[in-house]
Amino acid sequence: MSCEALLTTLNRPIVLIGLMGAGKTTIGKKLAQRLSLPFVDSDIEIEQTAGCSITDIFEQYGESEFRRIERCVIRRLIGEKPLILATGGGAFIDSETRAYLKEKAITIWLHCPLDLLLERVENRTHRPLLNIGDKRAILFSLMQTRYPIYAEADLMVQCQKVKIEESIEQVLKTLQKANLMQTLTVNLSQTEYKVLIGYDLLEQAGNLLTPILKQKYVVIIADETVAKLHLERLRKSLDAASIHSEIFLIPPGENSKSFYEYERLTKAILEKGIERQTAIIAFGGGVTGDLSGFIASTLLRGIPFIQIPTTLLSQVDSSVGGKTAINTPSGKNLLGSFYQPKLVIADTTSLDTLPDRELRAGYAEILKASLIDDPDFFDWCEQYGEKVIARDPKYLTEAIKLACAFKTRIIKNDEYEQNSKGRNLLNLGHSLGHALEAELNYDGTLLHGEAVALGCRLIFKLCVQLGLCPQQDLDRLTNHLKAVGLPAFISDLPKALSVSRLMMHLHHDKKLVDGKITFILVNGIGKAFTSRNISDNQIIALLENEGCIQP
Amino acid sequence: MSCEALLTTLNRPIVLIGLMGAGKTTIGKKLAQRLSLPFVDSDIEIEQTAGCSITDIFEQYGESEFRRIERCVIRRLIGEKPLILATGGGAFIDSETRAYLKEKAITIWLHCPLDLLLERVENRTHRPLLNIGDKRAILFSLMQTRYPIYAEADLMVQCQKVKIEESIEQVLKTLQKANLMQTLTVNLSQTEYKVLIGYDLLEQAGNLLTPILKQKYVVIIADETVAKLHLERLRKSLDAASIHSEIFLIPPGENSKSFYEYERLTKAILEKGIERQTAIIAFGGGVTGDLSGFIASTLLRGIPFIQIPTTLLSQVDSSVGGKTAINTPSGKNLLGSFYQPKLVIADTTSLDTLPDRELRAGYAEILKASLIDDPDFFDWCEQYGEKVIARDPKYLTEAIKLACAFKTRIIKNDEYEQNSKGRNLLNLGHSLGHALEAELNYDGTLLHGEAVALGCRLIFKLCVQLGLCPQQDLDRLTNHLKAVGLPAFISDLPKALSVSRLMMHLHHDKKLVDGKITFILVNGIGKAFTSRNISDNQIIALLENEGCIQP
Repeated sequence: MSCEALLTTLNRPIVLIGLMGAGKTTIGKKLAQRLSLPFVDSDIEIEQTAGCSITDIFEQYGESEFRRIERCVIRRLIGEKPLILATGGGAFIDSETRAYLKEKAITIWLHCPLDLLLERVENRTHRPLLNIGDKRAILFSLMQTRYPIYAEADLMVQCQKVKIEESIEQVLKTLQKANLMQTLTVNLSQTEYKVLIGYDLLEQAGNLLTPILKQKYVVIIADETVAKLHLERLRKSLDAASIHSEIFLIPPGENSKSFYEYERLTKAILEKGIERQTAIIAFGGGVTGDLSGFIASTLLRGIPFIQIPTTLLSQVDSSVGGKTAINTPSGKNLLGSFYQPKLVIADTTSLDTLPDRELRAGYAEILKASLIDDPDFFDWCEQYGEKVIARDPKYLTEAIKLACAFKTRIIKNDEYEQNSKGRNLLNLGHSLGHALEAELNYDGTLLHGEAVALGCRLIFKLCVQLGLCPQQDLDRLTNHLKAVGLPAFISDLPKALSVSRLMMHLHHDKKLVDGKITFILVNGIGKAFTSRNISDNQIIALLENEGCIQP
Repeated sequence: MSCEALLTTLNRPIVLIGLMGAGKTTIGKKLAQRLSLPFVDSDIEIEQTAGCSITDIFEQYGESEFRRIERCVIRRLIGEKPLILATGGGAFIDSETRAYLKEKAITIWLHCPLDLLLERVENRTHRPLLNIGDKRAILFSLMQTRYPIYAEADLMVQCQKVKIEESIEQVLKTLQKANLMQTLTVNLSQTEYKVLIGYDLLEQAGNLLTPILKQKYVVIIADETVAKLHLERLRKSLDAASIHSEIFLIPPGENSKSFYEYERLTKAILEKGIERQTAIIAFGGGVTGDLSGFIASTLLRGIPFIQIPTTLLSQVDSSVGGKTAINTPSGKNLLGSFYQPKLVIADTTSLDTLPDRELRAGYAEILKASLIDDPDFFDWCEQYGEKVIARDPKYLTEAIKLACAFKTRIIKNDEYEQNSKGRNLLNLGHSLGHALEAELNYDGTLLHGEAVALGCRLIFKLCVQLGLCPQQDLDRLTNHLKAVGLPAFISDLPKALSVSRLMMHLHHDKKLVDGKITFILVNGIGKAFTSRNISDNQIIALLENEGCIQP
C-alpha cells in the first residue's frame, strides 16, 4: 500500500509516545517527510506558548501546571490538521490527555530497551525529571510506572538499536498492518465484544488487550505445537505491555477436550492463584478455545476470557459465539457452557505455519457459512476460494471477516441455540459430519472441516433426491469442493464405512428433541432450514447410495 | 384452620377433576356440606341445558359439540358464586376449559387406582366413552392419555379404597396445606422463577412441576440419606403425574462436591440419554443442590434445573440465587457457575427428619440474613427464633419465607456478584467461617451454619473493637446465639485452633480482589457493608483474643 493510500484510510493525526530517548522527535521528523505531513513536537510548542523552557515551567509552577499547559497545546495541535506529533514522555500519562489522544489520534508507542534509552539521554540536561539523580535508576523507575499506561496506545513498535531508517520502516509497516486490520463487533443482549482480524496482531496483543483487561495478569492456555511456533511473539508483546502471563500447555488434538485436562488445568491454575479479574487466554485452535472457554466459564463461576485462535477453522467458527465444551464417552461437546469472550484476536500471520490440509479444512467452515443464507457469499467463494487456499493475504482476511460477520448475524438472534431458525442452521452438514468423525474416532483421518464439507454435500444430495434443491446447486458445490481440494465423496475416505454404525453415531448426537434428529436441509445454495421430518430410512438410502456398506 | 377461614383465604371456586368413577360427585357433595357451599355437577347442568342426556348429545352431535356446550356451562357456573363443581372426565382435557379453570378456580385432581375406578363404573351405562367396549381397556387407555393432563391441576389427592369420609378429610387437608403454602417470585433480568414453601409439597410435586417441565422426563440427583427418607413420596407424586424419573444417588457430605462425582454423574446421566429439555432435580441439601446445579448448567451447555432442598440451610440459602459449585484442592466452591433454577420447592415436612443440630445450623443462615440489612427481621428472630428451632410449623414457614425474600432482594440487584453492596453482603461471617471450616477439614466437627454463626459473631466483635458497632448489638447477637443453641465462641470448639493456619485459609478464600480480602463489616444489627481495609494484624489480634493459639 502506498503512503498516500495509507494516509487516506488512516485519516487521523499520528501521535508518537514513549519515554525520553525513545526517538519520538527523530523518528517523527523522518516519518513526516515520508508521509508528506507536518511534524510538531509538543514540548517545543509548549515552550513557545509559555515563553520559557520546560525546566523553568517545572521549577516555577510545578508539574501539574505544566500538564495543564500540555493538555491545552496538544488539544489545539490535534484539532488543526493531519500531522505527526511527538509528545513529551509524561503527556500520555495524564489521563485527560490520554483519553483525548485515544479518541482523536492514532497513538504509537515507541518501545525501547533501557540501555538504548540511557545512551540517548546521556548528555541531555533539559529534561527536568532526569536531572534529579542517577539516570538509569530514574529511567528504570519511569519504565515501571509508565509502560503499563503506554500499553494503552493503539500500536506499539519495538525499537532496537538499529539504524533510524529501519525503525521508520517498522513504524510504517505497523501502520499499514493496523490499517489492514478488520474489526467486527459482536453485540449480544448481555455483552459486546470485538473480533480483530489482521496481520502480525500478536505483536500488538499487549496493546490490544490493555483496554480489555481488568488486571495485568493473564493465564494462557496454549496448544503445545502452537506454543512452539508463536508463543514467543505473544509473550514478548504482553511483557512489553507489563502484562504478567502464566502459561499452561495442552497436547494438540481432540483428546485434550477431556475431563482429565479440565481437571488438571483448573487445579493447576487455582494452585497458581487467580482472582475474579484474572483473564484466561486461549491460544491455539478450536480444541484449545473450547476447553479454555469452559475452564474460564467455571473457574470462580466465570472469569474473563480472551480468544486468540491460530487456525483458520477456529478463527472463522469456534472463536466467535461463546460455545465452550469438552467431550465425554457419550459424544462430542456434551459438557460445556455458553460463555462469550471479551475479545477475539485472529492473527492471520499464525496461519503461515498451518499445514495446507488444515487451511482447507478451515475453509470448509467458511464455505458452509456461505451455503446457509447468503448466495452472494457462495459466489465470492467460487470466485476467490482458491486464492484463500493459496493464502493470498487480502482474500484470507476478507474470507475470515465474511464468515465471522455471518456468524455474528446468526448468534445475535439466537445466543443460546433455542431458535430453530437461528444458531441451529450453523449445524449444516454437522450431524452427518460428526457421525463420520465419530466413526473415524477423531484420529486425524478426517479433520472436522473435511467432515463438514462432506456432510454439507451429503445434505445437498439428500435434498436433491427429495426434490427440495436443484441438481445444479449440488453440482456447483461438488465442483467447488473439488476445486479447493476438499473431499466431496464418502468414497474419497480411506476406509469403507458401515451404515449402521453411522446411524448409531447420528442417534448419539445431542441435537435430539423428543427423540428426533434435527437436520439442516437446503432449498439450494444460501437457503438452509431446519427439519425434523427426515426418516432414518432416507438417511440409510443416502449412505448406501454414497457407497457405505451394510450393516 | 377452620373451614370458614380456609374458604375466606381460598376465595375461589373449587373444581374436582378426574376420570369417571374417581368420586367427583360423591366427594363433591359431602365436601360442599362440610364447607357450606353449593354443589354442582357440570354433567347434570349440561343435560338440563341441552334438554337431553349426554349419551344423546354424543350420539346426535358428536363429542366436539358436547365439549362446546360443556365450555359454556362451566364458564357460566364458575362465574356465578363460590361453589364446589364436579366436572366430567373430559372437561379438563379440553384446552380452553382447562385454561379457564386454571385461571379462575382451584382445581383438585382425584387420582384413583384403576381397580377402584373399575369397581365404581361397573354398572354405569350413561357414560358414552365407556359404552364402546372392554371397560378395563378403555379406562387404562384413558389414564394413559389423560393423567399427564390432569397433572396440570393445582392439587392432587390420591384416593385409595377407603371410606368416603377419609377421602374428604384428605381433600380438606390438602386444601389447607395448599392454603398455607407461601409463594415467592424471584425476578431476575433474564429469568423468573417461583419458590414454593409449605407442607407436604412432595406429595404435590408432580402437579407443581407439570407446568414447568418441557418434557415428562426428569433426572433426580438425590442425597442417599434423603433418598431413604423422602424419595418414595417424590417418586409417587411424579409417577401419578406421568413424569418418568431416573434416579442417581450421591453419598451425603461435602466430599460429594468433587470432580469425581461431577465426572461420574455427568457420564452416567449422558449414558442414560437426555435431551436439551430434560430437567435435573436436586433432591437433598446444599451439597446436592450445588453439585446438581453445576451438572445441569454444563450438561449439553445447560438443561432445566429444579431445586427441591430438604434441609433448612439449603431451603433458606443455597437453593435460591443460582450459585452452583464443586470444591477443588485449593478450596471450596472454586469451580461452578451462576445458573438459576426453574422452580424451588421447599417442603418443610422434609425437615421433620433433620437432626436438631442441622436445623440450628440452617437457622444460623436465617439469622445472618437478618443481621445484614433488616433490624426488624432480627427482632423477629429474637422473638420467634426459639419457636423455629422447636419446629413450630407456622414460624418455620415464616422464617424460610423471610430469609428467601431477603435473599431475593439482594440477588435481584446483583445476580453475578459484581456489586460490592450486593451479593457480597451475603458473605457476612463467611470469610472467617470458611477458614474455621477449612481448618476443621469439613469433617462435621463444625457445620457450615455453625461456622457462619461463629463468623458473624467474630465480625461483630471486630467491629465493636474498631468502634464501628455498639457493644449492645454484639451482646444481643451473643445472647441470641446462646438462646437458640448455636456456638458463639471459638473456645466452644473441641480443638485449639492455630492463628497462622486460620490466616492461611483466609488468604485462600476466592473473595480476593487485587490480593486483598474483602470483609463484610457491620455498623450494628441490620447494617452490613463491604470493606477491604481490614489488616491481617487486626484479624490476628481478634483471633488471639478469642483464644486461638500461636503460631
